[in-house]
Amino acid sequence: MAYASLIGAEVRRREDPRLISGAGRYVGDMSLPGMQHVAFVRSPYPHARIGAIDSSAALRVPGVTAVVTGEDLRDACTEMLFEGSEGSDVAEGESPKYSHYPISVGKVRHVGEIAAAVIAVSPAAAADGAAAVVIDWQPLPAVADMEQALRPDAPLLFEGAKNNIDHVWKRKRGDVEDAFANAHRVVKLRMVSQRLSGVPMEGRAVLTALDPMTEGLTVWTSTQAAHWIRRDLAKMLGMAENQIRVIAPDVGGGFGVKIGVYPEEAALAALTRRMGMPLRWVETRLEHMQATTHGRAQIADYEAAVTADGVVTALRARVVADLGAYPVSAGIPDLTGMMAVGVYRIPAVDYEITCVYTNTTPVAAYRGAGRPEAAYYIERLMDAVAYELHLDPVEVRRRNFIPPDAFPYKTPVGPIYDSGDYDKALSKALEVGRYADWRAEQQQRLAARAAGERVPLLGVGIACYVEMCGFGPYESAHVRVEPSGTVTVMTGISPHGQGSATTFAQIVADQLGADFEKVIVRSGDTALTPMGNGTMGSRSLAVGGGALVRAIARVREKARRIAAHMLEAALDDVVFDDGRYHVKGAPDSGLTLVQIAERAYSDDLPDDVDPGLEATDFFKPPALIYPFGAHLAVVEVDPDTGIVTVRDYVSVDDCGPRISPLIVAGQVHGGLAQGIAQALFEEVVYDENGQLLSGSLMDYTLPRADDLPAFVVEQTVTPTPHNPLGAKGIGEAATIGSTPAIVNAVVDALKHLGVRHIDMPLRPEKVWRACRQAQDGA
Amino acid sequence: MAYASLIGAEVRRREDPRLISGAGRYVGDMSLPGMQHVAFVRSPYPHARIGAIDSSAALRVPGVTAVVTGEDLRDACTEMLFEGSEGSDVAEGESPKYSHYPISVGKVRHVGEIAAAVIAVSPAAAADGAAAVVIDWQPLPAVADMEQALRPDAPLLFEGAKNNIDHVWKRKRGDVEDAFANAHRVVKLRMVSQRLSGVPMEGRAVLTALDPMTEGLTVWTSTQAAHWIRRDLAKMLGMAENQIRVIAPDVGGGFGVKIGVYPEEAALAALTRRMGMPLRWVETRLEHMQATTHGRAQIADYEAAVTADGVVTALRARVVADLGAYPVSAGIPDLTGMMAVGVYRIPAVDYEITCVYTNTTPVAAYRGAGRPEAAYYIERLMDAVAYELHLDPVEVRRRNFIPPDAFPYKTPVGPIYDSGDYDKALSKALEVGRYADWRAEQQQRLAARAAGERVPLLGVGIACYVEMCGFGPYESAHVRVEPSGTVTVMTGISPHGQGSATTFAQIVADQLGADFEKVIVRSGDTALTPMGNGTMGSRSLAVGGGALVRAIARVREKARRIAAHMLEAALDDVVFDDGRYHVKGAPDSGLTLVQIAERAYSDDLPDDVDPGLEATDFFKPPALIYPFGAHLAVVEVDPDTGIVTVRDYVSVDDCGPRISPLIVAGQVHGGLAQGIAQALFEEVVYDENGQLLSGSLMDYTLPRADDLPAFVVEQTVTPTPHNPLGAKGIGEAATIGSTPAIVNAVVDALKHLGVRHIDMPLRPEKVWRACRQAQDGA
Repeated sequence: MAYASLIGAEVRRREDPRLISGAGRYVGDMSLPGMQHVAFVRSPYPHARIGAIDSSAALRVPGVTAVVTGEDLRDACTEMLFEGSEGSDVAEGESPKYSHYPISVGKVRHVGEIAAAVIAVSPAAAADGAAAVVIDWQPLPAVADMEQALRPDAPLLFEGAKNNIDHVWKRKRGDVEDAFANAHRVVKLRMVSQRLSGVPMEGRAVLTALDPMTEGLTVWTSTQAAHWIRRDLAKMLGMAENQIRVIAPDVGGGFGVKIGVYPEEAALAALTRRMGMPLRWVETRLEHMQATTHGRAQIADYEAAVTADGVVTALRARVVADLGAYPVSAGIPDLTGMMAVGVYRIPAVDYEITCVYTNTTPVAAYRGAGRPEAAYYIERLMDAVAYELHLDPVEVRRRNFIPPDAFPYKTPVGPIYDSGDYDKALSKALEVGRYADWRAEQQQRLAARAAGERVPLLGVGIACYVEMCGFGPYESAHVRVEPSGTVTVMTGISPHGQGSATTFAQIVADQLGADFEKVIVRSGDTALTPMGNGTMGSRSLAVGGGALVRAIARVREKARRIAAHMLEAALDDVVFDDGRYHVKGAPDSGLTLVQIAERAYSDDLPDDVDPGLEATDFFKPPALIYPFGAHLAVVEVDPDTGIVTVRDYVSVDDCGPRISPLIVAGQVHGGLAQGIAQALFEEVVYDENGQLLSGSLMDYTLPRADDLPAFVVEQTVTPTPHNPLGAKGIGEAATIGSTPAIVNAVVDALKHLGVRHIDMPLRPEKVWRACRQAQDGA
Repeated sequence: MAYASLIGAEVRRREDPRLISGAGRYVGDMSLPGMQHVAFVRSPYPHARIGAIDSSAALRVPGVTAVVTGEDLRDACTEMLFEGSEGSDVAEGESPKYSHYPISVGKVRHVGEIAAAVIAVSPAAAADGAAAVVIDWQPLPAVADMEQALRPDAPLLFEGAKNNIDHVWKRKRGDVEDAFANAHRVVKLRMVSQRLSGVPMEGRAVLTALDPMTEGLTVWTSTQAAHWIRRDLAKMLGMAENQIRVIAPDVGGGFGVKIGVYPEEAALAALTRRMGMPLRWVETRLEHMQATTHGRAQIADYEAAVTADGVVTALRARVVADLGAYPVSAGIPDLTGMMAVGVYRIPAVDYEITCVYTNTTPVAAYRGAGRPEAAYYIERLMDAVAYELHLDPVEVRRRNFIPPDAFPYKTPVGPIYDSGDYDKALSKALEVGRYADWRAEQQQRLAARAAGERVPLLGVGIACYVEMCGFGPYESAHVRVEPSGTVTVMTGISPHGQGSATTFAQIVADQLGADFEKVIVRSGDTALTPMGNGTMGSRSLAVGGGALVRAIARVREKARRIAAHMLEAALDDVVFDDGRYHVKGAPDSGLTLVQIAERAYSDDLPDDVDPGLEATDFFKPPALIYPFGAHLAVVEVDPDTGIVTVRDYVSVDDCGPRISPLIVAGQVHGGLAQGIAQALFEEVVYDENGQLLSGSLMDYTLPRADDLPAFVVEQTVTPTPHNPLGAKGIGEAATIGSTPAIVNAVVDALKHLGVRHIDMPLRPEKVWRACRQAQDGA
């Protein structure tokens, strides 16, 4: 009997027929009887007191039902809950008392903050109503720049605070002073990881309705973490967790900006409780740019103490991280610190991240969340070392790599890397990418330009990354074999594009003998699934898959017991093999899962076997895990126009074993696009007063397909010991590796001109200007 | 620390605030975007060929989208699935090939059968469209009377059949012939258990919608058995079970008529798959009377061989059971046979039930389903024995009771009664009811009437019943303690008025230490709950409660493990007691479930304890169980008008331990009303041609509150050994006991006139006529 394992098979995504054919069901597609619509009145000021609110004109707009202010709703819902930083060795900030109700009370602290809600019978009437609300704004001095926010004379965001600092994350390990004192050279670099916006295709959207059954609420929301939304809404509204059912239907992308509870979710929940009718709000793109959390937004000053051979003996870093107006996820910059040394054995580190408030949209998780910044800094620094020592950047990296025999490796800043072989990944990238040929071509271009040809310059960029993922505290899975033998999985993760329904179906089919095509994976519904933590931080397969494998094992064990009964064999003699349950050595006698399931729900079971064929299990990862990889980019740069074209891209990523290679490739492709976009295109821009200048997709430059080359996606496979699948996570990897690879490549193309660094995004004007300045300076 | 157990506590129903305040959510309350409405074209003939169907006028009705015939839908859905009789010793019928598509093809066999469906944008347009469909009906000879249907010249319902018999259930045990040959007397009685209609306050209703996530369907339907509907629809539509999600939201009564899949459910499912849009159908009351299955509908000829002391030595019975036009649940009459001997030790039995088709609405489960008929027959027969031998009916019963020391008792017809003390229940009823006083009063009335006073006659009726319930094959429960310590239960039963959410919450609170007010019980949703079997046959607590107790035990065991960790105690030293988890002998040190739950979902757990605090379990009852009781009724009968008034009613029911006495009392009250209504009021009437004469609530007489006395509800408690709670079931008990008690009381009032029996319902005209005939005959 031929049997092909589905683990590692090139299967098509189960989700795609639905999504591609327009049958996806998003919150904005949903409608309930009696539903009304909410529009928010948002602050046009970066910092202002909310004076008198005059609703009279708004209430005269046809179709407007109510105008609700923060004061009106103050008793219905607590202030927003914020996640503090937990990882700090030394949390030094003043941690002011931040007051932020879902509909703000008293003050607003960034453009786009909510000051009132308008409920109306149509979205248009709600929008018209919102436009007609008159607020007596009293503008306050604002600070939008994170370094200015640190000045003693900066306007303060929070009353009673001594400064705008939330906390300072610090680590000092090893003899840093000694290393710098004895360094052959100190290489310094100031780098900006600019502020980005998530921009999923589907913005946020919320629909709330009373649930008479629980005297509670059902909340449909476009989220990555349904259970967390439930937990926080329950706390904020003073309800029992099981009175709130949070459902994430199809979610059109998240990228980290849909993890935490938002003011709009809490406001709609409180408003539905107050008003009684179902309410829906669907974010506009302007609202997304103004009010959905941003990512990155750091400025880093790095110094490396290096030997003459390019070995880094110490790292000193002073980073400022912009939290925006509220500490939505203040611990994320700490991750930058934890990943400070990247793939390198740097014995001494002095690291300090100052997390500061500004009158801007809050900054929280965005694909990679703290780790792309770390990889960007250390990989740019390695290129700077190579530049200053006139070494090949490959060679500098090899001289500093943590060697394969050093794992598990505890870095000076804390993390314990589980497993890795960084040179293997780099070597594979160099081999696949024909590195030597590219270097030769680069020289030919220089020669041609010297000869007067106006050919573009060629740059080769290298980035080696390691990231931290597999975050707990746990994940859950429920596996239910239906009487007909089809399998339903309920998982605590909450995928929103990752293809987990496919990957999980492969695992179920393979490890349980189920029909892959008929496995249904349900998620993102707090009533349906066991308590879970959602999809973020590349944790789905590593943690959620771990729970799934455990639940499958329980079900398989029970299936074996029933099979033993049916086959009249001893339990120990029955094995699951090649998709069937059979007596050892007699595979042809085997039973299928369909046969066993039918029996499991019949009344023909031995007394010691309960009916049913399903199990729940949880997986608590014993430690964090560290995927890694090496990226290689070739760019063409036209020094006369500053235009950068990515010509070749090789991505070697080690996420452990690949269950679904097509899905891994998809994650890599998307991650590369997003990481390259940070390098070249995207940037959220505020003016000095805190006005958002990039509030539309005319101003915020997303990458398009024709901005990107065909990617060469390769792999090494280094399983982690920390979960049953050995899986490491791939969701963020390519985003992390690609940003420094591209910037390194562009700078590499211009290094002969004396260009040492250009801050992202590397738009033509900036590149052109850098070329001119370098040439002028030369 | 004071702790009051919730088991047996007089708590209020958790469901009632929602239901009483109009916040219940029924299928008819639901609406989906793009939803359209279905109306059915139903046969006005009891038996006819469906000729040409002209839809042209219907399609011209504004708002009509489509007219769909059985032929149109034939490939989309199989014929209806019918449950054959499984329990027959000898299944003798010809079992014809019954063809019955959801929308009938070729032929209809009862008034109200579906011949076409009209889809329209409003219910009114759909109804107008249905009225405009022109069908060229070709009427066929019909038979509506079950005894006529047995005649050799009767019209046949099914082509190719030799007769109209589905099957004959037979049991013959003991030396019946010998007993009759040696009898002191043979007591004969012919009894009709007339046809009834379920008439829940909410009729049936179905809403179907495509579910893109599973490429399947969501079906909201007013059902008692969501999983069974799913199973049958999956088979009929050729889909995987987990592609269909069946949801029973609030259901406004079932009484057995909402158990099986109906043509309307299958038709809407198939139509939504074909047309794409959500479809809703809400039954009218006329449709309910015509097309929702009926109950009872039997004629029984009983003969008892008795000794001079009134001891029954043998029973011979010939019963005809009307199945209506299709074998929707053909095994139900078999239950009448299985309960043939009631509470009596009758050593020899010859029982035969012939199940026959007629051109009437199918007959299936209705509160008690086969068992009320059995109790009615044997209890009427016992009164006839008493009448003929001039014995007190109490004495006759006591002479025939199965004695308490005979349990477990295997009856000659098969069942093994688990436990019982029938005389104890009867004695309690007699004591509570002051039986002797009533008999004296009865004599006073007779004397008064003899003296010319026109006081009503008094009758005292006794009925002792035993019923069979706790049907398997199993039930399921999932218990989830949320991180905040509130508990959610998912149960495979599907309550529709029973109050199981309250009863289950009491058990959870008591056995797990949860907050009773915050326990949420979810049911009736095939995606939410483990595979279950629904609510019918008084099985909720006995079987569903058994699963719940097992799941709770698993969760409690895990809670103990976590508590041991938190208390730094050995697992064996930690006990759950008085609602807390504490070290033996140190109750004040105890932990609450809330504290343990918080820890269960934290990352502070020992390595050998998985996160989470939930469990699923199944309970497979080892055997059936047999609740019993004794009912006592006092009626006043005015022989001049025939008006019967129920003056006193004592119900002593033994359902084992009572978790929720208030809910048990409610079940008893409702059951008494329904059982008394069969005795006095209700009857589905067909004319000889098969036209339904009782198609509205003007014609079908439901009992009203002022038709009923205040009930005295008492109990004995004889736990069953067959489930963890010892619970026996109470849902049907009072219905079963009350019908014979009332008829016995009315006949008792008239026995001095020579009235020996009157067939139900005992309407004034019938009672008056019986009195007149008796007096005329005397």
